[in-house]
Amino acid sequence: MIYLDNAATTKPDSRAFSRAQEYLTEKWQNPSGLYREGFSLQGELKKARSFLLSRIADESAYTLVFTSCGTESDNQSMFGYGRRGNVVTTAGEHAAILSSVTELKNRGIAEVRFAPLNPDGSVDERALLSLVDEKTSLVSVIHVNNETGAINDVNALARAVKEKNPRVVFHSDGVQAYGKIPFRLGKEIDLYSVSAHKIGGLKGTGALVRRKSLPVRPYIFGGGQESGERSGTENLFGIKMFEYAAEEKFRTLAEDYQRLGKVREEFWERLDRESFVRISSRDSSPYILSISAPGLRGEVLLHMADDRGLIVGTGSACSSNAKNRYSRVILACGKDERTADGVLRLSFSPSTTAKELSQASSIFNQIARELRERMG
Amino acid sequence: MIYLDNAATTKPDSRAFSRAQEYLTEKWQNPSGLYREGFSLQGELKKARSFLLSRIADESAYTLVFTSCGTESDNQSMFGYGRRGNVVTTAGEHAAILSSVTELKNRGIAEVRFAPLNPDGSVDERALLSLVDEKTSLVSVIHVNNETGAINDVNALARAVKEKNPRVVFHSDGVQAYGKIPFRLGKEIDLYSVSAHKIGGLKGTGALVRRKSLPVRPYIFGGGQESGERSGTENLFGIKMFEYAAEEKFRTLAEDYQRLGKVREEFWERLDRESFVRISSRDSSPYILSISAPGLRGEVLLHMADDRGLIVGTGSACSSNAKNRYSRVILACGKDERTADGVLRLSFSPSTTAKELSQASSIFNQIARELRERMG
Repeated sequence: MIYLDNAATTKPDSRAFSRAQEYLTEKWQNPSGLYREGFSLQGELKKARSFLLSRIADESAYTLVFTSCGTESDNQSMFGYGRRGNVVTTAGEHAAILSSVTELKNRGIAEVRFAPLNPDGSVDERALLSLVDEKTSLVSVIHVNNETGAINDVNALARAVKEKNPRVVFHSDGVQAYGKIPFRLGKEIDLYSVSAHKIGGLKGTGALVRRKSLPVRPYIFGGGQESGERSGTENLFGIKMFEYAAEEKFRTLAEDYQRLGKVREEFWERLDRESFVRISSRDSSPYILSISAPGLRGEVLLHMADDRGLIVGTGSACSSNAKNRYSRVILACGKDERTADGVLRLSFSPSTTAKELSQASSIFNQIARELRERMG
Repeated sequence: MIYLDNAATTKPDSRAFSRAQEYLTEKWQNPSGLYREGFSLQGELKKARSFLLSRIADESAYTLVFTSCGTESDNQSMFGYGRRGNVVTTAGEHAAILSSVTELKNRGIAEVRFAPLNPDGSVDERALLSLVDEKTSLVSVIHVNNETGAINDVNALARAVKEKNPRVVFHSDGVQAYGKIPFRLGKEIDLYSVSAHKIGGLKGTGALVRRKSLPVRPYIFGGGQESGERSGTENLFGIKMFEYAAEEKFRTLAEDYQRLGKVREEFWERLDRESFVRISSRDSSPYILSISAPGLRGEVLLHMADDRGLIVGTGSACSSNAKNRYSRVILACGKDERTADGVLRLSFSPSTTAKELSQASSIFNQIARELRERMG
């Protein structure tokens, strides 16, 4: 099996699991317990928090709260900081942001404004800034788009937004960036969502990074865990899996970034130009390559690839239940419906090999040819 | 180590883990993937949902949505169904309900009314009913109290509440009941919260059981997983752990219930009457025994027990960060502050042995004597 759907989820890191397993078998007590074991687990929780935060932010200015997933982190940000007036976001957001701000709008809490995308899938900066005004409470811009891999310079965008309105809370969904893209939070970013299972951790673990000077706005209320910012018994096994998986990823982040950038281009060079066009730009995240076979259906190609042991995605797995045939993000990049219909998303991990990509390119060329012949 | 804090969390079931481990090592793909593996995992998810639901409810009338924990299930219920007018609950709720309804009140969404408790920790039914009126949107009554083990007859309470106002949504927090107490949902219950890690599953997995005729009110918005009722990539490893752990618990539920009731009474018989009074009544959940050493501090006894390898709780681990010295639930049972200060919560699991409880009773008698002598 060749697995090229790592933007949907990644295989749990076996090295991280070997280390974290003791939190299932020995150190499974409640970290809020007032006995020795509880205190010791609180220490382990603190270590994980500090490690995961310090990789991308200055610990004196930021804090990190553990949540159940990137989607929850996004919800906490939108519902916690979206206030009367307007919320500005982009046409290239993950469904977790789009659905949350739509709910804000439906409840009559805030007007929602969407900035259009450039052809490469990044947000149109001028358009975004033109939407920000005196009444803007919150701006949310995805860091790396999950369908195209387009990278937004969220540090620069946050700076520009705050020049226009310094009271805005600036959030970014960093789920496809954390542990993959060389990056540190600039001081104008207030909130940043991350997820464990996109980098070898477990589903059911995420975090929200918050600038300390921002008021705490819990979304899940209860026993006061996570300093009251996120209640519910701490999932320490998942949290330690997150820490250990991130350790592996950050250790080789720069070289993985370089190597995947190179093998992605080699892969693209091998694809038949008669069948495929490219959607992701060269300066997008090397972890994602969005391509299309215009005139063919991406979903059919996906199933044909699956039959040959090659697993890929079409756009976002997170929208698989949606009724829309065409990806709203691909259309927002200015692609026509014929191109949007043929989209495939290939997404990589540090363990993706050049050999796998070479095999994958042969399979793609073959199935596209076959499907064209079948269609006459 | 003798572990008697199973109401805080339980050791992950090793039989369940042996079975569920493949969801970490082989079947880790995204259940929303459009390829074969994704469809197969959707099937596994469906099986887990059906098993967990069918143990306590009629599958034709109820559905079950997976959440990240009991606290989230409680939040979804309170924020989703608490509407203008008033919300009625009890003085014996878990912090997840208390904090959520307090937030409803603070936001000016609903008036909140608390029904007092009987001396045994169950809710005063007449008082509860007297608080329900035309303007009540939601009633929430804990099934088994997490500090005293008091069991509320939530089926009967729901019936009585609906006789008074049939439009009320009736919720119960079943976290300390599910997989422990013989019970099936009566048809007047609309929502029921459960959690995996209290019965040998993992932290970070919970569920909300909902009567199908009740409108869907998501709390975490996004990619539309769980039929749109709870977005976020499905944590299938946690969910299968929940299913398999529940299988073990439900298989021997009736005999565990009997046996623990018996060994709990034997334990109580061995405790020095000079030192200890009993808070939990005889018809409370056999999984919990709340006792007090009036005049001594429970927290000090807890640490002395810890030094001797015996782990117990004082009230709820979920409130360990709260500043209140005395448990609000114990005070609501009518106990004085001296008694409330000396409270210890012992909580059991099916693997708690008579021998462990015999050793524990000796330790308790010894440390209470020691502490009294030390205090003069």
